Amino acid sequence: MPNPIDRSCLQQRRHQLAELIDDRVLLWSGSAVPRNFAANSFPFRASSHFLYLAGIPLQNAVLGLESGQLTLFMDDPPPEAILWHGPSPSRGDVAALIAAVTHYPLSALPSWAEDAATLPAPTLATRQEQTALLGRTLTEMGQGEQGVLVDPRDRQLAQAMVTLRLQQDQGAIEQLQEAAQVTVAAHLAGMQMSQPQSEAAVRAVIESVFSAHQCSTAYTSIVTVQGEILHHDRYTHSCCPGDLLLVDAGAETPYGWAADVTRTWPVSGQFSATQRHLYEIVLAAHDACIAEAAPGVEFRNLHLLAAHQITSGLVEVGILKGDPEELVERDAHTLFFPHGVGHLLGLDVHDMEDLGDLAGYAPGRQRCDRRGLRYLRLDRPLQPHMLVTIEPGFYQIPALLNDPELRRTYQDCVNWDRLVQFADVRGIRIEDDVLITETGCQILTSALPTTVDEITALLQD
Amino acid sequence: MPNPIDRSCLQQRRHQLAELIDDRVLLWSGSAVPRNFAANSFPFRASSHFLYLAGIPLQNAVLGLESGQLTLFMDDPPPEAILWHGPSPSRGDVAALIAAVTHYPLSALPSWAEDAATLPAPTLATRQEQTALLGRTLTEMGQGEQGVLVDPRDRQLAQAMVTLRLQQDQGAIEQLQEAAQVTVAAHLAGMQMSQPQSEAAVRAVIESVFSAHQCSTAYTSIVTVQGEILHHDRYTHSCCPGDLLLVDAGAETPYGWAADVTRTWPVSGQFSATQRHLYEIVLAAHDACIAEAAPGVEFRNLHLLAAHQITSGLVEVGILKGDPEELVERDAHTLFFPHGVGHLLGLDVHDMEDLGDLAGYAPGRQRCDRRGLRYLRLDRPLQPHMLVTIEPGFYQIPALLNDPELRRTYQDCVNWDRLVQFADVRGIRIEDDVLITETGCQILTSALPTTVDEITALLQD
Repeated sequence: MPNPIDRSCLQQRRHQLAELIDDRVLLWSGSAVPRNFAANSFPFRASSHFLYLAGIPLQNAVLGLESGQLTLFMDDPPPEAILWHGPSPSRGDVAALIAAVTHYPLSALPSWAEDAATLPAPTLATRQEQTALLGRTLTEMGQGEQGVLVDPRDRQLAQAMVTLRLQQDQGAIEQLQEAAQVTVAAHLAGMQMSQPQSEAAVRAVIESVFSAHQCSTAYTSIVTVQGEILHHDRYTHSCCPGDLLLVDAGAETPYGWAADVTRTWPVSGQFSATQRHLYEIVLAAHDACIAEAAPGVEFRNLHLLAAHQITSGLVEVGILKGDPEELVERDAHTLFFPHGVGHLLGLDVHDMEDLGDLAGYAPGRQRCDRRGLRYLRLDRPLQPHMLVTIEPGFYQIPALLNDPELRRTYQDCVNWDRLVQFADVRGIRIEDDVLITETGCQILTSALPTTVDEITALLQD
Repeated sequence: MPNPIDRSCLQQRRHQLAELIDDRVLLWSGSAVPRNFAANSFPFRASSHFLYLAGIPLQNAVLGLESGQLTLFMDDPPPEAILWHGPSPSRGDVAALIAAVTHYPLSALPSWAEDAATLPAPTLATRQEQTALLGRTLTEMGQGEQGVLVDPRDRQLAQAMVTLRLQQDQGAIEQLQEAAQVTVAAHLAGMQMSQPQSEAAVRAVIESVFSAHQCSTAYTSIVTVQGEILHHDRYTHSCCPGDLLLVDAGAETPYGWAADVTRTWPVSGQFSATQRHLYEIVLAAHDACIAEAAPGVEFRNLHLLAAHQITSGLVEVGILKGDPEELVERDAHTLFFPHGVGHLLGLDVHDMEDLGDLAGYAPGRQRCDRRGLRYLRLDRPLQPHMLVTIEPGFYQIPALLNDPELRRTYQDCVNWDRLVQFADVRGIRIEDDVLITETGCQILTSALPTTVDEITALLQD
């Protein structure tokens, strides 16, 4: 189990926050959510903003921040809890652990709350506690949304958190490296299964590596022979020779930091010629984006670079027809690569998506309707210490390829007869976690093979 | 993957419900709960009452029941969902699958809702939808609570559901057997680990067997060398020779049916003499309860039987002093066996605990303050097809054994010097899932060894 983030790092974050916001800040951790009855809950996951500043997950706790100094609001557990849950540290012990200057029970919150800025907690019950205390309704924001935070103090706090969390500090990088290492080990264990029988069996092996390292899943793992379903969340199929298995799974450390990694490999251990052709096209896009990733580079341009690479490759193998540049301008690649090439990664797998597009989109920018950019979650110039995913893909999605309007629009761009010959490729994605450095980037997940030869060698082991 | 419960069984449940309640019934499935942002949620778990009558988990669906006929309220997914989640069956297809007679979008609910009875959903967001539609506040009930349902229609529905769900039908039994079998396989895999290194590693192996069988965890697994912490929910310790490892873990089938099983075994493969003594005392209590379990037997008497067995055993080994009967009357056993001997099991691991003690306690009965009965979750005469756990235990809980008041009260009952010799036993629990039959009972988890010899043989394999 990794160490928690050290106190000096947490204190630095609190001081940096104080430089960006004048108001007092209150951040709620949240509480466990019942699964079927009150005592049987989902595993507790603290709010990411809370984790960023507290370092450890505490249930039913609130952080008060003023001039960089932390006040912890939390109740001691009821006396009976010791029978069921064992001895707990006192509030004072917890305060010392996270370098809180003072600490009070939750009943002291009202006297502290006046004029405080806050951010909506992920769970409704906690948002309603926030509303009751602060007298304002807090609405969660969805992907693509902006500006739902009504109160100017809350908006300023959101901007400040985005500023801080966009660039990972040393404490964060150590956690993210840990998440990446565990994830690499898990994917390797999945690839090295002697004969994967079923999606469920592969998922079980991969997630057991997370568990054995005290990690959880940062998101619902995708382990599927139907890679064309982008967020496939069931594991009901057998794995058959000839299938490609797409695995998109990432660990989350006990302190909440995520990895997000995808590999695609042949169940039989050998890529067919058609699978290899398309795999190498996706890999070329992946490699090109990583080669270009550096401070100052617009992430949107990496996305377009991936689109160009994939389009050129598909023209070369005869699936697309025409000039690659023109095809990308017409968004023809979205028939096969409909999503964005990556997103922010940190405490959340889509980092700070609870703030809508506030983190993902630079000030003044918003999502664009164009097919080729609609699903891009990140549109900012890269900065040092930003962590992003690079995850190009190729998919044959019936809902797109059989859509009458799309077929009309792209009738002249696709060689449908040629495409039929690639029927053994349903979905390929290759995804790594890429930390922007001062001059370029570093792949946190580079220990996991990407090339056809490397993967084939591993599968034959 | 097991088959879902067949439609004729579901229809029978609906007709039985109609015989017990005159009002229309509306039951909400609930929706996925965000983990850190809206698109990253905990795995969806439908409300158990919904699952009982629908058979399969459907998100954001509502069942309308009238005279045994089912109306399904559900929206078709938005067109864009097909890109991310693949093709979904239409509402009509789903309705046919679960034998709904009619089906409407959710917008049709208001015209159907008048005077309908309902039960509070586990998650707050859904309870607020219920309140908005029905105009009454629905409060979840906690363990030990009774009568929080204000509306007489809702109270009648709760009683009817208790009546139905107390006695498992054939469809339920098949699911529960499946959950039990997967759980047995998982515990066997845990026991057969060549050298358990850590709690986390054992948990990983056990839960991976659940996953490989498409099952989830019915509750947070307990895998600990600190068995004295009754609901220990972390996995941070190494396993050392000399430790007993207590594993309380149960699978839940994809349709929501649970198992709940505990085994305790020595990390080294061999029980010490002191561990063996106490293990055999707990096992004797376990076996005695199962030998007595039959229709008409008061579950409270099984609990007291376990208390007697444990007390007699502890007198024999010299830890307790005095007449066993008198010691139990004084609740002296609660120093070492503080919890109840079992509870209802079904769709929930504490079945129907969302209704407080309505299912666990027979009409007119309520929790009693006496130390020895306070945590008893079930106080009813057993009925055929009731599924209960039998789970006696022995623990050395510092919070109890060092409590000054308890030490005074039980000063004359405990040989503290003798107790010190059993320091290598922190916690032992042996738990099986027991289905009451027409004449006695059947252990659904009997394939898992219980005796010292059986366990030792398995560990040596």
